[in-house]
Amino acid sequence: MELTEKQVSSELKYKGVIVDVYLDRAELCDGKIARREVVKHPGGVTVLPVDSDGMCYMVRQYRYPAGKTLLETPAGKLEYGEEHLSCAVRELSEETGFSADELIDLGCCYTSPGFSTEIIHVYLARGLHAAKCHPDEGEFLNVEKYSFDTLTQMVADGKIEDAKTVIAILKAAKYLK
Amino acid sequence: MELTEKQVSSELKYKGVIVDVYLDRAELCDGKIARREVVKHPGGVTVLPVDSDGMCYMVRQYRYPAGKTLLETPAGKLEYGEEHLSCAVRELSEETGFSADELIDLGCCYTSPGFSTEIIHVYLARGLHAAKCHPDEGEFLNVEKYSFDTLTQMVADGKIEDAKTVIAILKAAKYLK
Repeated sequence: MELTEKQVSSELKYKGVIVDVYLDRAELCDGKIARREVVKHPGGVTVLPVDSDGMCYMVRQYRYPAGKTLLETPAGKLEYGEEHLSCAVRELSEETGFSADELIDLGCCYTSPGFSTEIIHVYLARGLHAAKCHPDEGEFLNVEKYSFDTLTQMVADGKIEDAKTVIAILKAAKYLK
Repeated sequence: MELTEKQVSSELKYKGVIVDVYLDRAELCDGKIARREVVKHPGGVTVLPVDSDGMCYMVRQYRYPAGKTLLETPAGKLEYGEEHLSCAVRELSEETGFSADELIDLGCCYTSPGFSTEIIHVYLARGLHAAKCHPDEGEFLNVEKYSFDTLTQMVADGKIEDAKTVIAILKAAKYLK
């Protein structure tokens, strides 16, 4: 059976700041019509920055939907028309103050493909040069430094719960072990 | 600086089938007020089922928000009041027809903690027993069988793009290698 669904109609239900929500009707592969809720998100990037001593720079932020702080790789949303790589360079600088000689592409992931269009491109940054960080207004975060081995253990122990961060750490292993 | 944000108000903007969307106002750690968009989702589970020959049972589904099919570990949303483990047993049965002697807890992940409450519990299932699968109405999926090594290579090659699936495969490695 060919698995496909065709848009029949699309209605904007909520126009927001980060997300817009649409309720679509789609024709399924058996010809029936079903509702499909779609949270439209611009997508983003995340970067795991590792210095020449093997130390990684992470950010701890309060995540309102989770109701607690999470330790994450530096990350951010794509601005309109922005390339993933430029976004990675910008977010790395904004959140940690680093520029990097090398950004290694670790692929991308759909965070919640059942209801959200969000796709995140994942990078490993090496050859770090310190500058000054300048988070967005209203963005409060602490930069924390961990060895890569510690981060790997924290993933195994369930102490890192953000999906993109788990993926960045586990995918970076082949470059850092 | 203590990183925390306190809810000041919460307004339901969209009441949907899978998600509800709220626009909250929150007090930030500097006392300022900011808007916070929250997509409320019941959360879910995903299960990587591996048989005694080391073959894994995956599902391929058309994911409307992604606009294409994705290869994923069997998964589903929590029903009201349902325990994660019961949900894992149910979804494994519904999507692949298997029951399992052993469900190993691989931890949980927030898929998009910047805007969504969704948290997914990840399991590895071993000791599989075949029965009959019975997907939900309107849910079309193909079950596909891969060796664990092939899946690991597909993750490395970017051929598996669903975040929870990447995490399930990479976290399961310590039990299967």
